Amino acid sequence: MTDVRPPVGLVDSGKGSNPIPAGGVAPEAEFDVPSGLPAGTPTPRAGDARLARLSLNQRTTANWNLREAIDGTVAAGLSSIGLWREPIAEVGLATAVGWIEASGLRVSTICRGGFFTTADPVERRNAHDENLRALDEAAALGAPTLVLVPGGLPEGSKDLVGARSRAAEAVAALALEAKARGVVLGIEPMNPIFAADRGVVSTLAQALDIAEQFAADEVGVVVDTFHLWWEPGVEQQIARAGAGERIVSYQVCDWITPLPADTLLSRGMMGDGHIDFPAFTRAVATAGYTGDIEVEIFNAEVWAAPGAEVLATLARRYATLVHPHL
Amino acid sequence: MTDVRPPVGLVDSGKGSNPIPAGGVAPEAEFDVPSGLPAGTPTPRAGDARLARLSLNQRTTANWNLREAIDGTVAAGLSSIGLWREPIAEVGLATAVGWIEASGLRVSTICRGGFFTTADPVERRNAHDENLRALDEAAALGAPTLVLVPGGLPEGSKDLVGARSRAAEAVAALALEAKARGVVLGIEPMNPIFAADRGVVSTLAQALDIAEQFAADEVGVVVDTFHLWWEPGVEQQIARAGAGERIVSYQVCDWITPLPADTLLSRGMMGDGHIDFPAFTRAVATAGYTGDIEVEIFNAEVWAAPGAEVLATLARRYATLVHPHL
Repeated sequence: MTDVRPPVGLVDSGKGSNPIPAGGVAPEAEFDVPSGLPAGTPTPRAGDARLARLSLNQRTTANWNLREAIDGTVAAGLSSIGLWREPIAEVGLATAVGWIEASGLRVSTICRGGFFTTADPVERRNAHDENLRALDEAAALGAPTLVLVPGGLPEGSKDLVGARSRAAEAVAALALEAKARGVVLGIEPMNPIFAADRGVVSTLAQALDIAEQFAADEVGVVVDTFHLWWEPGVEQQIARAGAGERIVSYQVCDWITPLPADTLLSRGMMGDGHIDFPAFTRAVATAGYTGDIEVEIFNAEVWAAPGAEVLATLARRYATLVHPHL
Repeated sequence: MTDVRPPVGLVDSGKGSNPIPAGGVAPEAEFDVPSGLPAGTPTPRAGDARLARLSLNQRTTANWNLREAIDGTVAAGLSSIGLWREPIAEVGLATAVGWIEASGLRVSTICRGGFFTTADPVERRNAHDENLRALDEAAALGAPTLVLVPGGLPEGSKDLVGARSRAAEAVAALALEAKARGVVLGIEPMNPIFAADRGVVSTLAQALDIAEQFAADEVGVVVDTFHLWWEPGVEQQIARAGAGERIVSYQVCDWITPLPADTLLSRGMMGDGHIDFPAFTRAVATAGYTGDIEVEIFNAEVWAAPGAEVLATLARRYATLVHPHL
């Protein structure tokens, strides 16, 4: 990491504070992305025990293909990665499996299955079959969890109760299929900002109401700070999830305001927004979760930054805001 | 309403369907705003019994001052209006009271009090005093309810639990003050999209948990479709609110996607989005609510349209989507 520098246009040089010492270029100068602010702490490097559970969700470095994401994750000293199906499909499953095995990385999750709120019988069957393929991929890659994003209201429908009911039915149809493959389904409750068009399961309480209809080695829940930070009583729901051994993934990123114009890309780097990561993380740790912790950030500015700088920033933020509270 | 015409730029004349008949201008042609689509039903006019409970929340016609809003509401045949404090302040409370009394309109709510999540003692006192002034105004205008928007996280704070706790404390400090003035405090739970920067009370269940600590003639809840449509179990919460006679206002507007870039202005005209108004309205009616029903739409396109056309559209949409289900 000798080429770390502030992203163009993101550092306010008008404040009179020049991050470059008078003596010349400081080789250790590092800057957070996307804020452009000087790094508040040294970057944890390969071998640093604090990185043991940190996982890069591949969408955080959306401009990297699978090869680059694997290499970047290894280079940053992480031992885990959360993979998305589209970049796997680009190279083919067998190649992806080979690369992952050669890399030594764990696959923390496969993102994503779900999208099963349709009322149309043919579409339901297609969605089910697609989820079976996703489960096959998760099993082949050794991922313990397939993340399920339920999907939004079907086109033209305003029946949210019905869509939620069908999502639960679709989970039921997949539960034993998942277990047979050694994969646990992870229902991801999503911020209500996405209730209409992306995910009709809106709270951890609601996700647990579904998951608890099945065995814990069949269906669990994904605990994502962005989606759940606002939920009244979320600490109690996290405890409930932990008591039932239902937490299959802990994902972190921040809620920033003002929201970017494209709300799908409104996630921020931990520390750049309003979420209390120490308190949230303590709740997850107290609930007994010992798995990997993914950083998943959909954000145009993050995507525009060099992947290595994104990884360095998220490792620093994780080391200060998350790891001490595990 | 002889000057109704499609708003400039909103009607797609490229589709080959000219709304003006070949014989000349059709005096009855009406178009919805902001969609620009032909009206699906005749506009209810003054004297139409369906308008008896319909109230214009003044922010829906944000470009109208108080005088224009009163005149426009009367002209549209409504008998109720929800007032905001800023336009009242522009003319002074005494003038506003005189205008309202002369108009014969009911004032359904005063918007808005609240903004009391601060931890700073001086700011807390100031917020309390400001809410007392708002209560005085509500009493003077004969409004049964002061709508309380709790406010977001204080600047730099990430303590959402603390902010919620302070909001409840602030309500407690105001409860008897409201009762003494014959005004009921209406806690407005807000869509979690606003949890960080506008309203830390995020669900109807949470608002009721606060309200039920007080008498029903002191503290109630505002039921707003935009804020609550996604809430799991919202029908049960509406029933709970009704059983305790806690519903002090029913406000309607739609959730539209994609969300406009400014999420504060992301509310849509009823029928333009994803909310099931018949089902939601039946729940409110079944819960026993018999008060006024406000249309409150923050939307740049609505604000850019002539107020009379906005009122005509909302009256039509109310007549088809809300009124039949009361």
